[in-house]
Amino acid sequence: LYEFNKLVSTQFFMVGEFEFIEKLRRKYSLGAIGDDCAVLPKDEKTDQVITADLLVEDIDFRLDWTKPEFLGHKALAISLSDIAAMGAEPKWAMLSLGIPENVWHSDFIDRFYDGWFSLADEFNVELIGGDVSRVPERLVIDSIVIGEVAKGKAILRSGARPGDLIFVTGKLGGAAAGLQLMKNGLSYESMKPDRDIELTLRQLQPLPQVNIAKLLKIQAIVTSMIDISDGLSSDLMHLCKESGVGAKVYADRIPVDENLRDLYRSEQERLEIALNGGEDFELLFTVPEAQLSSLNTWTFLRSAR
Amino acid sequence: LYEFNKLVSTQFFMVGEFEFIEKLRRKYSLGAIGDDCAVLPKDEKTDQVITADLLVEDIDFRLDWTKPEFLGHKALAISLSDIAAMGAEPKWAMLSLGIPENVWHSDFIDRFYDGWFSLADEFNVELIGGDVSRVPERLVIDSIVIGEVAKGKAILRSGARPGDLIFVTGKLGGAAAGLQLMKNGLSYESMKPDRDIELTLRQLQPLPQVNIAKLLKIQAIVTSMIDISDGLSSDLMHLCKESGVGAKVYADRIPVDENLRDLYRSEQERLEIALNGGEDFELLFTVPEAQLSSLNTWTFLRSAR
Repeated sequence: LYEFNKLVSTQFFMVGEFEFIEKLRRKYSLGAIGDDCAVLPKDEKTDQVITADLLVEDIDFRLDWTKPEFLGHKALAISLSDIAAMGAEPKWAMLSLGIPENVWHSDFIDRFYDGWFSLADEFNVELIGGDVSRVPERLVIDSIVIGEVAKGKAILRSGARPGDLIFVTGKLGGAAAGLQLMKNGLSYESMKPDRDIELTLRQLQPLPQVNIAKLLKIQAIVTSMIDISDGLSSDLMHLCKESGVGAKVYADRIPVDENLRDLYRSEQERLEIALNGGEDFELLFTVPEAQLSSLNTWTFLRSAR
Repeated sequence: LYEFNKLVSTQFFMVGEFEFIEKLRRKYSLGAIGDDCAVLPKDEKTDQVITADLLVEDIDFRLDWTKPEFLGHKALAISLSDIAAMGAEPKWAMLSLGIPENVWHSDFIDRFYDGWFSLADEFNVELIGGDVSRVPERLVIDSIVIGEVAKGKAILRSGARPGDLIFVTGKLGGAAAGLQLMKNGLSYESMKPDRDIELTLRQLQPLPQVNIAKLLKIQAIVTSMIDISDGLSSDLMHLCKESGVGAKVYADRIPVDENLRDLYRSEQERLEIALNGGEDFELLFTVPEAQLSSLNTWTFLRSAR
């Protein structure tokens, strides 16, 4: 049994950023800021959700660790994950690219778009705009995705109530372990064991839980949701903070990625990666205990991934 | 009398960028790309327009030439100008910032937001989201603005017809001349003559023609419109290309900024700056000759700036 407050004390790897957004929100009374997406009224039946994600070379990715196609995929995937976390369906996207001279004069951008469109086609997302600019060095990507959800039905971070049960899709820790493999000098191209490749792909080519989010929305039993980008512990804290609740997480129920078993001998170490690693882009959500029976299809959903 | 084709042959300062977007548009059949904003259906009465503009330090601005408040203003202004060029009204905005460590630990960002919100309040634009990330060096800003326009009434680049008359708001060349003053070593803080300050502010703190665009839309006589970001010659070319028309521009009718007179003795030089300088963020639009009388209020509109 883990106490939530204890868990989150060690993993504030972006110190200042959350506080900054919080300050901005208070100073300018920004009601729409603070969830995975902003929610805007569209028409009588529909709300619109919109998200932006900035990816910076050598901060969020390294060109020598990834392939252009993976990076194009991931740039879209992280924004689709935000849309999914609202229980919404992605529709349109924009892409702003700051491109260094040497990247501009290679086949990088063509391959980047191949990866981007390959994922976009899977979910019928249309590219409608963006911007292209030169940068002196280091690629910059701003990914914007617009989605739609039934009016008033966007699933916020703030809807969790005391007594709700906490769920997470998929397995955790794989993306962080994949990142560690690359930090240790393994490049994707040279990897042999399937295990290493699978973990690395969790980091380089994450799958946004768009379809699962759609099914959960239909069930209409989810009270709050967030995607796991910073790590289970951080993102659960965000959800708790917005909902004004606390949380208890049972260590033995955390779905640690099985591929971590060979790489990390200590169970404690595996657990910490699953808790604090981040970038798994699974969905974390809460369900009232009375609705537990509605989650009967859950096993099916999970295996459908 | 200037022949349009002759004019545009020298000022392709972003070679490759337009061609790249054109290639992308063809390859992936992207119908929504190519105007100042993408147009999306909203409800029965309204369309939505959306634009993104990427600003990169040392490419699009220099921190030692500007003030944080000016940069915040300009980041929003250039996107508001795109919204205005569709005849639309701005509503919501997102801001993605890539912030270097030293900028993060100064009062820069607070002052940047002061400038941003000061302009946003003027046009009732609400900040609804965005992203904040660290960058190793060089500030990056992606400015996204969403606007609204009556259904089917967005003014596209493609609506100009043979015989239409071409108009431009305000004066041209000031922003480019202001940039040249700073390139010559004058900093905004040290400037004395009002003329230099005025020109420099045209570059650092441009005024988007949001109100004029609103009035023009009501008149419903404008067949095509674009904002002057790259320069009159470039932007007129974009408009002509999308409309499938040519254009003649009368040299003596180009509204050259009066402040240029002391700085550039040659009329030819002044004219070239007004034609090719860019970043004036005035509006360029076309009107059928038969509607010319509807432009009676035009002098009023212009002086209202």
